[in-house]
Amino acid sequence: MAGSGFGNVFRMTTWGESHGKAVGVVVDGCPAGLFLTEEDVQAFLDRRRPGQSEFATKRGESDTVEILSGVFNGKTTGTPISLMVKNNDSHSKDYEALAKVYRPGHADYTFEQKYGFRDYRGGGRSSGRETVGRVAGGAVAVKLLQEFGVSFLTYTKAIGPVEMDPARFAAEEMGRNPLFMPDAVAAEKAEEYLRRCVKEQDSAGGVIECVVKGLPAGLGETVFDKTDALLAKAMLSIGAVKGFEMGDGLAAARMKGSENNDAFTSAGKATNHAGGVLGGMTDGSDLIFRVAVKPTPSIGREQETIDCNGKETKIVVGGRHDPVIVPRAVVVVECMAALVLADLLLLNASSTVDKLKRVYRPSSGGTDAHRDEQRK
Amino acid sequence: MAGSGFGNVFRMTTWGESHGKAVGVVVDGCPAGLFLTEEDVQAFLDRRRPGQSEFATKRGESDTVEILSGVFNGKTTGTPISLMVKNNDSHSKDYEALAKVYRPGHADYTFEQKYGFRDYRGGGRSSGRETVGRVAGGAVAVKLLQEFGVSFLTYTKAIGPVEMDPARFAAEEMGRNPLFMPDAVAAEKAEEYLRRCVKEQDSAGGVIECVVKGLPAGLGETVFDKTDALLAKAMLSIGAVKGFEMGDGLAAARMKGSENNDAFTSAGKATNHAGGVLGGMTDGSDLIFRVAVKPTPSIGREQETIDCNGKETKIVVGGRHDPVIVPRAVVVVECMAALVLADLLLLNASSTVDKLKRVYRPSSGGTDAHRDEQRK
Amino acid sequence: MAGSGFGNVFRMTTWGESHGKAVGVVVDGCPAGLFLTEEDVQAFLDRRRPGQSEFATKRGESDTVEILSGVFNGKTTGTPISLMVKNNDSHSKDYEALAKVYRPGHADYTFEQKYGFRDYRGGGRSSGRETVGRVAGGAVAVKLLQEFGVSFLTYTKAIGPVEMDPARFAAEEMGRNPLFMPDAVAAEKAEEYLRRCVKEQDSAGGVIECVVKGLPAGLGETVFDKTDALLAKAMLSIGAVKGFEMGDGLAAARMKGSENNDAFTSAGKATNHAGGVLGGMTDGSDLIFRVAVKPTPSIGREQETIDCNGKETKIVVGGRHDPVIVPRAVVVVECMAALVLADLLLLNASSTVDKLKRVYRPSSGGTDAHRDEQRK
Amino acid sequence: MAGSGFGNVFRMTTWGESHGKAVGVVVDGCPAGLFLTEEDVQAFLDRRRPGQSEFATKRGESDTVEILSGVFNGKTTGTPISLMVKNNDSHSKDYEALAKVYRPGHADYTFEQKYGFRDYRGGGRSSGRETVGRVAGGAVAVKLLQEFGVSFLTYTKAIGPVEMDPARFAAEEMGRNPLFMPDAVAAEKAEEYLRRCVKEQDSAGGVIECVVKGLPAGLGETVFDKTDALLAKAMLSIGAVKGFEMGDGLAAARMKGSENNDAFTSAGKATNHAGGVLGGMTDGSDLIFRVAVKPTPSIGREQETIDCNGKETKIVVGGRHDPVIVPRAVVVVECMAALVLADLLLLNASSTVDKLKRVYRPSSGGTDAHRDEQRK
Repeated sequence: MAGSGFGNVFRMTTWGESHGKAVGVVVDGCPAGLFLTEEDVQAFLDRRRPGQSEFATKRGESDTVEILSGVFNGKTTGTPISLMVKNNDSHSKDYEALAKVYRPGHADYTFEQKYGFRDYRGGGRSSGRETVGRVAGGAVAVKLLQEFGVSFLTYTKAIGPVEMDPARFAAEEMGRNPLFMPDAVAAEKAEEYLRRCVKEQDSAGGVIECVVKGLPAGLGETVFDKTDALLAKAMLSIGAVKGFEMGDGLAAARMKGSENNDAFTSAGKATNHAGGVLGGMTDGSDLIFRVAVKPTPSIGREQETIDCNGKETKIVVGGRHDPVIVPRAVVVVECMAALVLADLLLLNASSTVDKLKRVYRPSSGGTDAHRDEQRK
Repeated sequence: MAGSGFGNVFRMTTWGESHGKAVGVVVDGCPAGLFLTEEDVQAFLDRRRPGQSEFATKRGESDTVEILSGVFNGKTTGTPISLMVKNNDSHSKDYEALAKVYRPGHADYTFEQKYGFRDYRGGGRSSGRETVGRVAGGAVAVKLLQEFGVSFLTYTKAIGPVEMDPARFAAEEMGRNPLFMPDAVAAEKAEEYLRRCVKEQDSAGGVIECVVKGLPAGLGETVFDKTDALLAKAMLSIGAVKGFEMGDGLAAARMKGSENNDAFTSAGKATNHAGGVLGGMTDGSDLIFRVAVKPTPSIGREQETIDCNGKETKIVVGGRHDPVIVPRAVVVVECMAALVLADLLLLNASSTVDKLKRVYRPSSGGTDAHRDEQRK
Repeated sequence: MAGSGFGNVFRMTTWGESHGKAVGVVVDGCPAGLFLTEEDVQAFLDRRRPGQSEFATKRGESDTVEILSGVFNGKTTGTPISLMVKNNDSHSKDYEALAKVYRPGHADYTFEQKYGFRDYRGGGRSSGRETVGRVAGGAVAVKLLQEFGVSFLTYTKAIGPVEMDPARFAAEEMGRNPLFMPDAVAAEKAEEYLRRCVKEQDSAGGVIECVVKGLPAGLGETVFDKTDALLAKAMLSIGAVKGFEMGDGLAAARMKGSENNDAFTSAGKATNHAGGVLGGMTDGSDLIFRVAVKPTPSIGREQETIDCNGKETKIVVGGRHDPVIVPRAVVVVECMAALVLADLLLLNASSTVDKLKRVYRPSSGGTDAHRDEQRK
Repeated sequence: MAGSGFGNVFRMTTWGESHGKAVGVVVDGCPAGLFLTEEDVQAFLDRRRPGQSEFATKRGESDTVEILSGVFNGKTTGTPISLMVKNNDSHSKDYEALAKVYRPGHADYTFEQKYGFRDYRGGGRSSGRETVGRVAGGAVAVKLLQEFGVSFLTYTKAIGPVEMDPARFAAEEMGRNPLFMPDAVAAEKAEEYLRRCVKEQDSAGGVIECVVKGLPAGLGETVFDKTDALLAKAMLSIGAVKGFEMGDGLAAARMKGSENNDAFTSAGKATNHAGGVLGGMTDGSDLIFRVAVKPTPSIGREQETIDCNGKETKIVVGGRHDPVIVPRAVVVVECMAALVLADLLLLNASSTVDKLKRVYRPSSGGTDAHRDEQRK
């Protein structure tokens, strides 16, 4: 309710500030019997770890995760999984100058409006470091979904004005360039663009695309908790995200019904303009969505702002900042999507009396149909 | 949880199918002491009522709302407000032919995948008629927000490829054309476009923009329940919505930090690229967002599909359908936004100890600061 | 959240005041495919209907339920089930004299403290009539549980000081006396006691016991949402309930561990002091609990009270009141228990990866054990 | 939802097993601006710490709490407060013999029924050690309530058959005896009784009473989330609690209306049979409730049970156990009550439009009444 919890049946609560002692997450409602190790989670945290390229903050965090509860003999027990990552390399001094002025594009001003004061060190709770908890929690969700044949493909689709060319899509490229862009040509151009931004003490945004394969049909609720609605919430809850598109997204608004409808064939849908959902429920085809990420608001240039007394002043944002957060946000997008889908998978297990019978009366399956007949 | 509830403190639960006896909503958590009449709610329902233009379904519903509970002597009592609208003009026969085939672009297939069978009459719960409950509930939220100086401006920004020109924006135009478009020139072009669509037995989509004025700063939670995240969920939960943009939205992904950051000045923000939120909290400037609506999936043309046995077949969708739902969806967008904001307004009332003291110890305000001093 | 919603996955929201147009409930999250008719619900409402004995209010309500949504061709569709009962025989005039004084033992005073004013007609939302929604919603829960072999036995255990003798327990007696007491001798004494109360313009309380048979083991969550915790909440939420006991209840506090522990045997537990739960989870034996109901606060005698200006005055409560509500509350207790258990049944369907596989991969059951072996 | 979260607006999530690395709690939704130190929390943990008397387990835990987030410069920031206590003295070896048999009165059997297997070390998540998180979270709630003049008096009312005499009540006695019993005579008798239990390798239960002073009237919701309902849930969620009484509790069932009703006088209620709630809302008088605690199920005597294959066997429970948990549970009861009340305090801040105006338009208070007049 208070905003640091996410999900219903599969629910996580994250905690921690940029310059506090640690950041973490408690995952409550993960089914028992899932194989889970610290390595499983670490692999995801490594994908968002700072300091891995010239385009990421130099903050030197190993981001080593510890499982504090909920796992016994290598398997989840059904009780809350507490995951913690200590903060090691926080330079709080860098921020003292910022205690009384509001950085443009940041939550400084609004945080004070809401809470009366703020932990100004590194953005506090509104720092990108808050996503550590999301990624750790999401790693558990991905592990669970894998048991049901679900897999993710998430990548950088654009950096600033540089877009990848779908015709050149090559998944193996993603691991080869620091931008997680599955198109070597576009990645090179994007790197050039970013170097120019850095030189100009400026920053860039971009677009992330996520494709989810292997989902069962029927996930998602019919009215407010549609799969796409929950994904949209999940994505816009990520600090710098300003837009969300499901399937063809904004382009659909310009299409005609005859162009946008996906025909059903005996082999599945002929096209996938919808992006894998109909009426908010998964239709068994690939789930496809995109998010637009704004440029990092922390830039080296001098900017106009006000101080906490409303007086106009100039600000130069120090600290160590990413000129673009898109590459590091790729895994955050994937993890948030996994959290939505794991939750819906669990909830959907009780959507019909028949499913419940498979759980509680696995051997009586055959008789139901018979009895239904009689009742009619 | 099961998906027909929306909001936390200010919460509504909607119910009803297109061809059932009635549709309705229960609003739980509305503060006591709000003046509310059936006319207040009716005014909003009238904005979405069918049969008012050549571009809307001919279904003849008066959509008369009844307040069944929660209001006494013209004021809300703090107990659940039950609002009901009877269904009068449902032609269920039109749909019997569709009982065993799946309409492209509709929830027929996914509904059966999820629930095993479906109420095929008029789309059942996945019909646009489901939004009656949203609008009735949202009307209460708007009324509450008005008490705090909040107002809404929501309009059609584009129909298919025809976009309004911001330079020609004229609010009074909205009421003059059936498309709720605040630009007479664009509206006329859009009407022509729509007539062509109708002639071709095709349909159109479009874009809706919503501007909210007068919000206090600080609404919205800092992590998962950001104002923009909840708005995105609210919008994508509307049947045909495929995209959501906050402020500059997708365009922000191409901008540089120096262009996208809004400078603070002593008179407020110099620009509003962010659309009125920073770090998920309202910043006191106008809230601005847009949604992309797909073209109505029900079209007169013959389409390819399968039946419930997976066999390929053709379908011609009968019934009475809107060639474009954008104009009628304008009020739905406004109402869903109001529901999000009313909920956040209530929740935010307890975000600090000081606010709570204004509620519980209104006269002791002055002493706190004093005691804080001593404690330091 | 705002208090008129109950349950998580299987969730109901009730609405309506004693003297409003109607009372009702929306059940959201009921699995699809459950056979449900208005008669199923009516049978439960008839058990709480007023006017059926000399010990119940003479208010003449037929309490006829209407299913407004969520059922198609005799089966639940998975969408919200809206149930409504109209109020016919409300005598609001009786209550005008009470508008400005607070009835002792009632919610008049606290309602005004909370909400600033109140619907004083018949207690408004704090009337016993509010339980119509609970019973209608609970009837759906009972119907669902029956599909899984669960049954209820709920009865009056005591009226005032008159307790039934467990040695004389005879279930068939319940239907024969107006007190729902499964002991003819005690029932007769209780009736005499009640007649004396009526003559003295006074009222009586009592104890209700509920036994639930056939529950699967493992329902209930391990920490806060224990089966007994949720039952306790459900019971204390019923207007006049002042105490809750699980199994041996208060008596357990005086016992020694060696007396209170239930030994396990190969045929089940040797005893059932615990009342069917261990660590908050059902253990497969009968669930047994009791609730203590206070005497009806509305009595004909003159009482001391204050008016809304705080001035002392006398009050004589008019209107039509039950000298004892215990018999009519029996079905309310049963329905609230059913709502708790249906919700836990659904939630528990996803407590392990193995259960989820029975739902999503019913044919692959055998291979898991094998793979687990390999992994070890 | 999954059961390790508690509360709505003021919400905590606890985690951790008896023999895991640590136990902890995340408190989300605590208002900003509350002074909070580790000492504040430690004082509460010290009240439940083991090893402090001959009647408590000898497990040697210092139970030192660490604040990991949510506090800056000595004040809460509005973000999640993460509190952690490391486990130091867990003797997991003691429990290996118990891995394959079910201890009577424990959750061993039900845990396996629910989750398929269990962390058998020290009861895992179903251990009394789980309450560390509740107490740490509750300490924050108590601190918040103190700001509004609320105070708690919680004590042991009975140990086994030895009850305190209300006529001898002396609050200062509580700190003088290890049983937290405010009656020196009864405490001495209870100690003797317990020594006999220990000698007989047996255990005892008892009763805890809690009195809350200074609550504003109007807290609690009118239907399902009544103050007493939420307290009942909170109490029954504590491992060994088997019964709950509000005010006169079970005794009310035997009283007549004329005896049980509390008359209103200009100086408050003349009596307090109700225990401080009317219609589920606090009435401004003391809140009074009691809980019945069963005898510790871990006893030294040999008991009958079955193993995980259903074969009958004998069990002798080793490990270090409390012969009575009542004294250590006193603070748990207090903390759970505080969590319920803090949550209701926050939620109630938005129960009327007028309260919201005190928050958002503190200076406009006077005009509302005026306008209301005109509207009438």
